[in-house]
Formats: sequence, C-alpha cells, structure tokens
Amino acid sequence: MSYSTDFYTAAQELIAAGQFIDRKGWVPATSGNFSARLPDNTCAITVSGKHKGQLTPSDIMLIDALGQSLDGKTPSAETLLHTHLYQRYPTTQAVLHPHCLSATLISKLWSDAVVLEDYELLKALPGITTHATQVRIPIFANDQDIARLAQQVDRYLDQHPATCAYIIAGHGIYTWGNSVAAALRHLEALDFLFECELRLHRVKNQ
Amino acid sequence: MSYSTDFYTAAQELIAAGQFIDRKGWVPATSGNFSARLPDNTCAITVSGKHKGQLTPSDIMLIDALGQSLDGKTPSAETLLHTHLYQRYPTTQAVLHPHCLSATLISKLWSDAVVLEDYELLKALPGITTHATQVRIPIFANDQDIARLAQQVDRYLDQHPATCAYIIAGHGIYTWGNSVAAALRHLEALDFLFECELRLHRVKNQ
Amino acid sequence: MSYSTDFYTAAQELIAAGQFIDRKGWVPATSGNFSARLPDNTCAITVSGKHKGQLTPSDIMLIDALGQSLDGKTPSAETLLHTHLYQRYPTTQAVLHPHCLSATLISKLWSDAVVLEDYELLKALPGITTHATQVRIPIFANDQDIARLAQQVDRYLDQHPATCAYIIAGHGIYTWGNSVAAALRHLEALDFLFECELRLHRVKNQ
Amino acid sequence: MSYSTDFYTAAQELIAAGQFIDRKGWVPATSGNFSARLPDNTCAITVSGKHKGQLTPSDIMLIDALGQSLDGKTPSAETLLHTHLYQRYPTTQAVLHPHCLSATLISKLWSDAVVLEDYELLKALPGITTHATQVRIPIFANDQDIARLAQQVDRYLDQHPATCAYIIAGHGIYTWGNSVAAALRHLEALDFLFECELRLHRVKNQ
Repeated sequence: MSYSTDFYTAAQELIAAGQFIDRKGWVPATSGNFSARLPDNTCAITVSGKHKGQLTPSDIMLIDALGQSLDGKTPSAETLLHTHLYQRYPTTQAVLHPHCLSATLISKLWSDAVVLEDYELLKALPGITTHATQVRIPIFANDQDIARLAQQVDRYLDQHPATCAYIIAGHGIYTWGNSVAAALRHLEALDFLFECELRLHRVKNQ
Repeated sequence: MSYSTDFYTAAQELIAAGQFIDRKGWVPATSGNFSARLPDNTCAITVSGKHKGQLTPSDIMLIDALGQSLDGKTPSAETLLHTHLYQRYPTTQAVLHPHCLSATLISKLWSDAVVLEDYELLKALPGITTHATQVRIPIFANDQDIARLAQQVDRYLDQHPATCAYIIAGHGIYTWGNSVAAALRHLEALDFLFECELRLHRVKNQ
Repeated sequence: MSYSTDFYTAAQELIAAGQFIDRKGWVPATSGNFSARLPDNTCAITVSGKHKGQLTPSDIMLIDALGQSLDGKTPSAETLLHTHLYQRYPTTQAVLHPHCLSATLISKLWSDAVVLEDYELLKALPGITTHATQVRIPIFANDQDIARLAQQVDRYLDQHPATCAYIIAGHGIYTWGNSVAAALRHLEALDFLFECELRLHRVKNQ
Repeated sequence: MSYSTDFYTAAQELIAAGQFIDRKGWVPATSGNFSARLPDNTCAITVSGKHKGQLTPSDIMLIDALGQSLDGKTPSAETLLHTHLYQRYPTTQAVLHPHCLSATLISKLWSDAVVLEDYELLKALPGITTHATQVRIPIFANDQDIARLAQQVDRYLDQHPATCAYIIAGHGIYTWGNSVAAALRHLEALDFLFECELRLHRVKNQ
C-alpha cells in the first residue's frame, strides 16, 4: 500500500497533535482517536490500541467516507463517530477525541449538558465573538454500540447544528474544526473552561 | 517592511516569554497577547489569532505609541490596553496578558479586588520589601468595547498608581514591568499567590 | 559480571518507563521499583535507593525467580512482591510499583478496596471490553515485613485471580502486564481513574 | 576572582537542582536560594534576584562559614539560615530553600507544625526505616529580621536536633542533607507528603 502526500501530511499533523494532547495528560493509556479529512474525501485516522503520544506514521490508517478500511488495517470501533461529523459538516477537516479528565468529571457531575458563559475564552470557539454568550456542550450516555451512539449524537446535532463539541459520559470529548489546529484550539479552550467549571462547582456546591 | 534590531530583540524575548507562559498552561488556544516597548517609543506586540506558545518573528508586529499599525499587520483589539500602560508608566517596557486559570477563577469568586498579604513572594512585586504588607489587584468587568474597558482601567490607575497588575473578569490578567523578565516575574508570583488564595478559599468557605 | 542482550533490552525498557513515570510525578525521591521477566525466567529489577527518573543500566540488577541476587547487587526488600506475581501469572512479563499520589490518597479515604465502574478507560485494563463493568482494586495495610505483606497479597489473589493491580496503604500501587508497555498502560489508566474518583469523592462527601 | 574546581562542581549541582526544582514549580519568580558546602568549609550559594530555574555559574557566589562574601558578590539576606545549618550539622553538605505551594499552604492551615505519619515515603527522610513513625516539621512565623528568625530556628533545633526540614510561614521550606541529591530527595518527599496532607485536610474538614 502506498499513501498520498496528503495522507502523510495529515498523518504528521495527527502525530504532532497527539504529542501535544499527551503532554496535557488527555490521552492516558491508549485512549482517544484522531482523524483528518483528505482532499479526496477519504480520511487519515489513528488505528486503535496505540499510545496517542507516541504515534508513528504506521499508526495512522486510511478509510473511506463511510469508515471502511482502504489499507487493510482495522479501524477503531469509534470510526463512525468521525465519519458522521465529516458527512454533516462539509468544512470540517479534523476530529479529535481525547479522554480529558475534565470532560470525564463534567459528565459525572452535570446531567445532559454543560453550559459555558461569561468567559473571554469562548471566543476561541467557532462563531463566538463575545464572552456574553452561552455555549452548550451536550453530554451523551456512553454506549458500546457505536451505531446507536452515533444515532443519538445525530439526533442532537440535527436540532443543534452550531454545536462544536460533545461529551460522552465517563468517556471523553469529541471536538472538530476546519483544520487540525482549529480542532486543537477548540479542545484546549474547552478543557480550560471545563476545569474552571469544575473548580467553581466545588465551591458553589459546598 | 524591514524591522530594526531592537524590534527583533524584543520579538525574541516575547517568543521566549510565550513558550515559558504556555508551558505553565496560561495561554490556552490562541488567547493572550504580549508587548515590549522599543527605545523609539514604538512597540512590538503579538498579532492576534496565534498560539502564544508557538510564536515566530512574523507573529510579532510593530505599532506606534497610540496603537496604530506601522507594518500593515492588524493589531489585536486589546492593543489599547497595552499602549495606555506605556503612556501612564514611563519606565514600563513590557506588558503581558495571559489567560491564567487562577486569575479567571479569582474573578469568579472575589468581587472587585483580591488582596494579597503575608506572603514572602509579594517581594517579587515592584516596591515591596516585606511580607507584612497588602497588595491589591483590582478586578474589572469584562467588556468587548476595549476603549470603554481601557477607560475603566484608567480611572482606577489614576487613583491607585502603584498597582502592578489587574484582572479582567472571566478573561485574564494584565501585568507589566521594566523588562520582559520583570513582567514575567510579576506574572509568575501573582499566579502562585492566586493559586494559594484559591486553595485557601476552598477550605475557609467550607 | 556480563549480562545478556535480553537483560539490556529489559533494562532499557525499565529506564524509559522510569522516565515516563517520573515525568508524571509518580516516583518522588527514590521511591518505587520496577522489574521485567527475561526469557530464562530470571528478572531484571531496579536496585533500591536510586531516583527512578534517572536510572542508568547499572541501576538495574539480575535476580532469579525466587528473588535472589545473581550479580552481587543487593535487591530491594520488596523484590518478593515482584517474584510472587511472576510465579502466579505465567504471562506476566513486567511489574511496576510507583508511589502515585492518587493511590496514596485513595488508600487514606477508601477502606479495603476501590471499585471503578462506568468509565470507558476501564477498557485499558486486561480482559475488560465495556465501561459497564466493575473493577475492584484491593487495598492492603502497609507492612515493613515484606514476607507477611506478600502472604496477605497472595491470599487475596488466590481468591481473585483476575486482579490487575493492588494498592498498599500510604505507600503506592503494584500493577503488572504482559509487557512493560502493558503494565504502563494499566498504570496510566488506573492513575487517571483514581484521580477521577478522588475529585468526585470530594464533591459527593461535601 | 578565580574559583576552585570544588566550587564549580558544587555550582553545577546547584544549577541542575534549580532546573529540577523549577520544573516542579517550586521557585516561582526569583524566589528561593540553594547552597552547598565545600571541603574547606566555605559555601557555594545562589546570589539573590535570579530565577532559580535559569541559573548560570556567575549566579553562584562564594561565602565563608559565617556567611561573609569572599568574592565581592552580595549574599542573600537569608544566607544566615544556611550557615547556621552547616555549623549545627557537621555532615550536612547542602541546603535547599524553595517556595513550594504545598509548604506555603500548610503554613496557612496548620499552626506550629505538621506531623507526617503512616506514609512509606517517610523512609526517604534521614534515619527513618518504617512508615509507622511520626515526623514533625515545625512551622516558624515569617520575619524580615533574619538574625531573629535564625535564632527562633536555632532554639527549636537545639531541642529537636533530628529535624530534617522546617517551614517559614507564608514563605517556603528549608531542608538539607549530606549531598545536594540527598537534600533534593528530602524536598521531593516532603512536597509529596505535604500535598497528601493538604488534599486529605480538605476532605477531613468538610
């Protein structure tokens, strides 16, 4: 199997993103998966079972728009959650799914969503131009049946298309953007804001 | 556009400061902005929209003393907050504005100011020679109208000229000094002291 | 004394694991010890008294299956806890014992075990394929008499052979796996999950 | 001024210790000071006003056993606290004084001492061979009059010669050892144990 230059470029971006995300502690053990859409609408995506802070090009595989393997490697069970986002959002070029402690804790203490407001950093999220706004990040129940989980997500995004991320309870976060850098920006902002909410929650609920 | 050696020296200091500040986690996503005054009273300042831990010389632009671009690049909306400080304090040579978690949380739990006292580390702040003192860091409401926000800050600093930093609520901190190193020293000390206050607050308010 | 290539390979893996673990802050001072089984059923194990983030090949020694020194170096008092695991689990090739803050705190706040459930990251542990499960990590009282402590552990593992880790109260964690990488994966997952439990505990018990 | 090889060796050890300690966040701004005794009973000690994570050999000065400068550089005001320890303890070769967040917080929440017990990591401290012991770390009021503070410390150490560290309230910790590595080991162990106590304190006092 030989890969295109676009594939290798995307793979390098995902490898660098993984090192960045791992330094933050957001992909413990071999958790998480990352993908980037290529110009021909195929996707580069991490294979499962590898430490995301120590990825090499051979840990990135090629799938088609429906999530089928194009290079004989076995895609992660969660691949469907990536491809659904690419199908829904034509400008989305990257999807990041780490297991942040902050998102995991949020999902255990909030119920169906966490609402972020009155933070300047909200402006790092797409389409936000003022802190005086509300950004709602939905929380879905975890499910080993990924098709069913994807359906649950789809129903929500049909109703709330401007969503930029979602949490799977006790599991992690999915966020996406028009480039790997944009998705990373959303991730870094959300983790910071979740951590703010968690530390304020502790105080407010005493 | 060609820049002076002074500009490049200042740009290198701001780049290194950005890497230091990012390792601490104080500039998530593309938040924050930093500047340094040059001998001819122009300023080197970070352009907006870049990750402050990954700055290159082309991410630093040149403005005049009033905040107008001198090199065709677009200055950050918050540039005015930098230039007002340089106009007010003739010896100030650098202004740092990161989005520390500590400052953000302080602004959500304290009201119009946080008062620091009885810490040896206060001596890292300008003009402080003993722990047995009080340092007041004011907190201003966030405002997307930067001219109005600058006015709010100016009114306070007119009354309290010895101030070394201020917090914008839900946003971040501004601190300054006679060099980039001095501003960094103030920042590192204040973040430590804010974190102390936050952890003590939790206990005291149980 | 000359060592086999297998020994040096294992030593390099333990040195790298030590650097990884130290960056996480899990082996403060000279705490912790790590081992790897060699093909001939001898073991490479860290000598005591060295900082585990700064190991060199000479800080790794060779012991036989019963924990006796084969190279004249003095094994750690806790060597027995390693060899018992190798004797019990034929596929276990590595044992890691760091002093994580999380495990230490868990042991002070929970009594005889911590039960982890409803976390996707549980799937990083051996034999777990769904978050909808319970993983029990037992906590044993600390004891300077290592033979007696080993006996305590053995009694529990006789009854609960599927255990993948245990905590010694006020001391640290033991975890193991089919390779150094697998043991590291278990460790990284457990530390994350312990930290989740600790932060939730604080809220739930307010 | 030319320095001995012993001086340069000690300076390199203090520089490396500073980098280690700074990575932990224990010397914010330009806080802290470190020293090492030389074979001729003079001392290498950090000059004041430098960032301890970025020391160069010229940031280390030479003092005599009474704390007087031998090279024309100005010693830190706290030099006396170092030399008193060297006079008291003939085997002590290094003194480290960082501003750990943990020690600062302990001093705000405990009164005249913190007692550590039932931690395996206590064995990293000198003369401790079991977790089933108590180690008392005294807390002294901060004082800008260093001679008076030194006297306060001396009175305590006269009564409790086996002490391995003390806290100055709102300020930081002093610890020492038979080498720079030994003092670092004590520091790393104490910071870990203080952090344990702080996190348990929060729970116990709810």
